[in-house]
Amino acid sequence: MPNQRWVRLSTEKATSTLHILGTELCLDICGAAPSAATTFDIWATLGLNFSVDRNTEESNLSFYAPRWELDKTVKVTVTMDAPSIEADEEKIRISYYKENSKIPVAKAILHITCVEISLDADINRSGMVTRRGKQKSQWTWGPDGRGAVLLVNCDRDTPGAEKEDNKDTELKSDLDRKDMSCMILTAHGPNEVFQNHQLILHISEVEDDKVGVFYSQGEMEKKHYKHVLGSGKLSYKVERDLDQVESVFYVEGLKFPDIDFSGLLAFHASLLESTNKEIPQAPIFTDTLVFRVAPWVMTPNTLQPISVYVCSVDGNDDFVAEVRKLASKARCKFIICPPEENRMDRWIQDEMEFGYTQAPHKTFPVVFDSPRNRGLKDFPFKKVLGPDFGYVQRDLPPEISPSSLDSFGNLEVSPPVKVRGKEYPLGRILIGTYFPGNFNRNMSKIVQDFLHAQVVQSPIELHSDWLLVGHVDEFLSFVPAPDQKGFRLLLASPSACFKLLKEKEEQGHGAAKMFEGIEFPEGKAHSITEIIADRSLRNWNEYCQKCIDWNRNILKRELDLTEKDIIDIPQLFSPDSQKSSAVAYFPDMVNMVVLGKYLGIPKPFGPIIDGQCCLEKEVRHLLEPLGLSCIFIDDYSTYHLLRGDVHCGTNVRRKPFSFKWWNMSP
Amino acid sequence: MPNQRWVRLSTEKATSTLHILGTELCLDICGAAPSAATTFDIWATLGLNFSVDRNTEESNLSFYAPRWELDKTVKVTVTMDAPSIEADEEKIRISYYKENSKIPVAKAILHITCVEISLDADINRSGMVTRRGKQKSQWTWGPDGRGAVLLVNCDRDTPGAEKEDNKDTELKSDLDRKDMSCMILTAHGPNEVFQNHQLILHISEVEDDKVGVFYSQGEMEKKHYKHVLGSGKLSYKVERDLDQVESVFYVEGLKFPDIDFSGLLAFHASLLESTNKEIPQAPIFTDTLVFRVAPWVMTPNTLQPISVYVCSVDGNDDFVAEVRKLASKARCKFIICPPEENRMDRWIQDEMEFGYTQAPHKTFPVVFDSPRNRGLKDFPFKKVLGPDFGYVQRDLPPEISPSSLDSFGNLEVSPPVKVRGKEYPLGRILIGTYFPGNFNRNMSKIVQDFLHAQVVQSPIELHSDWLLVGHVDEFLSFVPAPDQKGFRLLLASPSACFKLLKEKEEQGHGAAKMFEGIEFPEGKAHSITEIIADRSLRNWNEYCQKCIDWNRNILKRELDLTEKDIIDIPQLFSPDSQKSSAVAYFPDMVNMVVLGKYLGIPKPFGPIIDGQCCLEKEVRHLLEPLGLSCIFIDDYSTYHLLRGDVHCGTNVRRKPFSFKWWNMSP
Repeated sequence: MPNQRWVRLSTEKATSTLHILGTELCLDICGAAPSAATTFDIWATLGLNFSVDRNTEESNLSFYAPRWELDKTVKVTVTMDAPSIEADEEKIRISYYKENSKIPVAKAILHITCVEISLDADINRSGMVTRRGKQKSQWTWGPDGRGAVLLVNCDRDTPGAEKEDNKDTELKSDLDRKDMSCMILTAHGPNEVFQNHQLILHISEVEDDKVGVFYSQGEMEKKHYKHVLGSGKLSYKVERDLDQVESVFYVEGLKFPDIDFSGLLAFHASLLESTNKEIPQAPIFTDTLVFRVAPWVMTPNTLQPISVYVCSVDGNDDFVAEVRKLASKARCKFIICPPEENRMDRWIQDEMEFGYTQAPHKTFPVVFDSPRNRGLKDFPFKKVLGPDFGYVQRDLPPEISPSSLDSFGNLEVSPPVKVRGKEYPLGRILIGTYFPGNFNRNMSKIVQDFLHAQVVQSPIELHSDWLLVGHVDEFLSFVPAPDQKGFRLLLASPSACFKLLKEKEEQGHGAAKMFEGIEFPEGKAHSITEIIADRSLRNWNEYCQKCIDWNRNILKRELDLTEKDIIDIPQLFSPDSQKSSAVAYFPDMVNMVVLGKYLGIPKPFGPIIDGQCCLEKEVRHLLEPLGLSCIFIDDYSTYHLLRGDVHCGTNVRRKPFSFKWWNMSP
Repeated sequence: MPNQRWVRLSTEKATSTLHILGTELCLDICGAAPSAATTFDIWATLGLNFSVDRNTEESNLSFYAPRWELDKTVKVTVTMDAPSIEADEEKIRISYYKENSKIPVAKAILHITCVEISLDADINRSGMVTRRGKQKSQWTWGPDGRGAVLLVNCDRDTPGAEKEDNKDTELKSDLDRKDMSCMILTAHGPNEVFQNHQLILHISEVEDDKVGVFYSQGEMEKKHYKHVLGSGKLSYKVERDLDQVESVFYVEGLKFPDIDFSGLLAFHASLLESTNKEIPQAPIFTDTLVFRVAPWVMTPNTLQPISVYVCSVDGNDDFVAEVRKLASKARCKFIICPPEENRMDRWIQDEMEFGYTQAPHKTFPVVFDSPRNRGLKDFPFKKVLGPDFGYVQRDLPPEISPSSLDSFGNLEVSPPVKVRGKEYPLGRILIGTYFPGNFNRNMSKIVQDFLHAQVVQSPIELHSDWLLVGHVDEFLSFVPAPDQKGFRLLLASPSACFKLLKEKEEQGHGAAKMFEGIEFPEGKAHSITEIIADRSLRNWNEYCQKCIDWNRNILKRELDLTEKDIIDIPQLFSPDSQKSSAVAYFPDMVNMVVLGKYLGIPKPFGPIIDGQCCLEKEVRHLLEPLGLSCIFIDDYSTYHLLRGDVHCGTNVRRKPFSFKWWNMSP
């Protein structure tokens, strides 16, 4: 239904009004009618289209057709097809009649000027502004959805700038402008209309801290940009030159969606009538355009890797060299975070998560900086943030200390899934939280709220607090697969490990030892027979298996997985020194880095049987049929003994999905 | 789909597990299978139901039917029909076979105990707890919807208590308990199961500041209530007596929905397995129950009035007496707010808004205290809050001063409407906000956010800032009507007023004067002819009419009204002393109090023609055909000259809708 504007008539004097192209004028036929009048007729100039709509029965009007009975149900609407060249170009006349009279008792004359006012953006998501779009105040999801997209301009295009591009009110470069969405205000009509009408662009208080709008002034080379809305500026009187039809604005987002912000932002272009200097302006028309701020999107292991990050710390040269080799096989860029930047903190998985943000006109990676803040605290902001590389963080209030569950080894994402008819084409986020009864750490609400608010990768809560470190990457990973759903879920499995060891014992290899050739801590059982006989280790692992199975049930339900989609990777856990939570007994094989078909797996140092580690052999046997290449990396002394493995010590930036987030239905 | 739990088998030793009534156990057939085995069969005691589901083709098994091929697609599920009497009552045995062998190569035996664990509330909205409800973690709207309702326990049942009942962690009286929702935890099964399993009731951090849960202990007379969840308590270990099947809890809401709170609250009952004192507990099962906190609901003029409030201030005895008479006609309770409580503030409409909150088991009125905070500041809390009379407020941070738009004369609600297919059975809230360009006052975001978050009366923003006081009740009201939509929208209309005056002038009454018999301020034109001739007054009123018409267009669109649903009430406005915004030129007739069919209308003091005020006559002519009774009340010197009229000086509590809010689809 087009927007309707009701306009009063006068039988005293001819009046004038504006008609806004694409809307309808409704004439107040009855309001102006003299009390004696019972019927009316209409005459109009050719440029006007008018229609008469009434609910009551057609009455018997014999004199001059068409003439209509005056009553409140009659509705006269007027439209025009193009902006007027001159003011008051068209005219409509309503003549009122007494019963049975040929001579009108009064006439109301209305002059009409048509103007076009339209606030437009890329509502068709084509990368270009859609002119004269309809239903711009609605934003809809899905392949048939409509509505423009705004990026949070959280990169830093200007070398040497102190902060992200959206932390100031300047538009400094073309690179910066290209991160913004173009918004065009069309105001087309006779110049004199815009002399006694004011055009304003405005937002409400809600939008104020979430957007920045720049007005593009001047021609080509001499173009400059003025900050006109946001950060305290709620309205902008549009300066329009004579005959100027379009005003071009650039819009940037300041904030990602969050618990108190759906991501929708409304911009309004309004026309105000200034009849008289002594009287305030009255609103005539508002055009509303809604943008959605693009969410931050995570990338699962099944997406192509672009670059691999690792920290260089005292004594981990061999590890760095092995990861470098792996990265080179997978044709990834290899990035070392040097000691002065990591300050002895090797857990680069935990400090940040790579994702991206996307609009039809522009996509760039965005690093999410965790509230963990240990040695690597400054690395994401100082070294990752840059031109076309955005940055977002969620820090805790100073009185709250982050827990280990706030580290981003505890933040993963599944490949795309379909769950009982509902599509998750960007996968679902997986986070580890606590289960009441035992412990009480949790991923901070501020981080969880942010993840939920992105909407497109609906998070699933797993139970990770049974682990000393408490990260989901300690018991699960995803690898690409050529068949079925395109991936397998790998789960650490004490049961599978005991089953394997028992088979080996039955085959006469009970004396084969774990940890051959490395210095292992005192007290660890190490022959297969000893491990199997260790009742307390068995009990402990049964408990761990139950915790993993609890998560397995959640994952099966929430990702709609069957047993065929899951591979159990042999793994044992042991209690920590407090005997209250679990740590990996040998390097945690699911804590791997996945680079396309190349898997960098913590070398488990399992019992050597027939010259081969039986754990490695089993894992190869499970994964190689999927076309995957297992590369075992020794992280024993440099990572494993410090309570993490290969995944914890690496980070990977991946290609964005080819699927566009706005094409889904969350 | 019932909840599934995956359980591991062992061929080494018989194992035990719990089955939760209403769920399914999935057996890990393949995980326990010896590597040589290729087929399996199943034997089970009679109390077990099992089913075998496989995706692959039935294979040619000639020995003993039924026997199944071992592969990952096979799925064996087990259920039971009732809680077990004794532990390990039922048993299932899986026998594994090598190819072509009659003798099993291994057997896995699993003992199963069935227990019932169910957390229930009134999910059918009948006023009683629904036992063994399904899909309790979903909350759905509409007549076919399901899900329990929680009240914000914001009344004060205990005489002399300092604060609302939900501001402490005590349940003091039966009256208090009746405001809470009952929640029953059923735990049915052999006692020994509950000796090595822990039952806990828990909430997440999100719920912590939004609920209070009390555990009902002891029998009948000796009953007492212990605060077990909320306000820092996230989990409660349920103490279960021998053979105790049900534990009864009472739940209160602490907060109404708001921008960061949808109103949904989840409660979980979990069973944890404690195998061994040295090993932490592992989760086995969680039942989740979701409540929605009942919204605060406003009551339109079309609902039956219960009580009328008015302030007694210096010199307004006549006004109070007239309102008392009106209330008595309408059979309403009449409540005077005395001078010591109003502290010279007569604008009782502005300080508070009456509404209610409702659950299937209980409904009570709730006063919403505005952030306006003038003389009447303490009245709602001190005098309205009480037994079964709730209280909610939204105060601004101390650094922000409320504007006149924060007064609740600027907060109204329409009668029920249907708008292009969408039903609003509780009407829609109307608030006045600013229009950029002229002024910059607004209703505070904190109040707007609260109103939007109630969800059931989707607010409409009107433009009220063109008025000096800036309230929507200065230009609109709703009255009941026997026909059409059941109501009419009354709009103040300068056009209608000039039209009327002009007719009177044409009829020879140009000399008739306004304000006869009262002292009027200097400079006001007062004969009909003078008023019509006052060009600047005409211009000003044309501006005001445009502002009202702007709102008329919004109201027509957002409430789906036609011209037949609207009555124009003659009214003039004049500029304030700054000539920047509008005030009523004579007592503002739409600013009326509506008590059923009795309307208390500000006496306009219009020109007397044939012994009758022509404005009163016109209004009677417009409204009396609807069966309404117009009672004109003189508020000239005591209210009108102070910039308000009858509606501003009164407040009305009304009966709740008979329509239940949960039956709508917002």
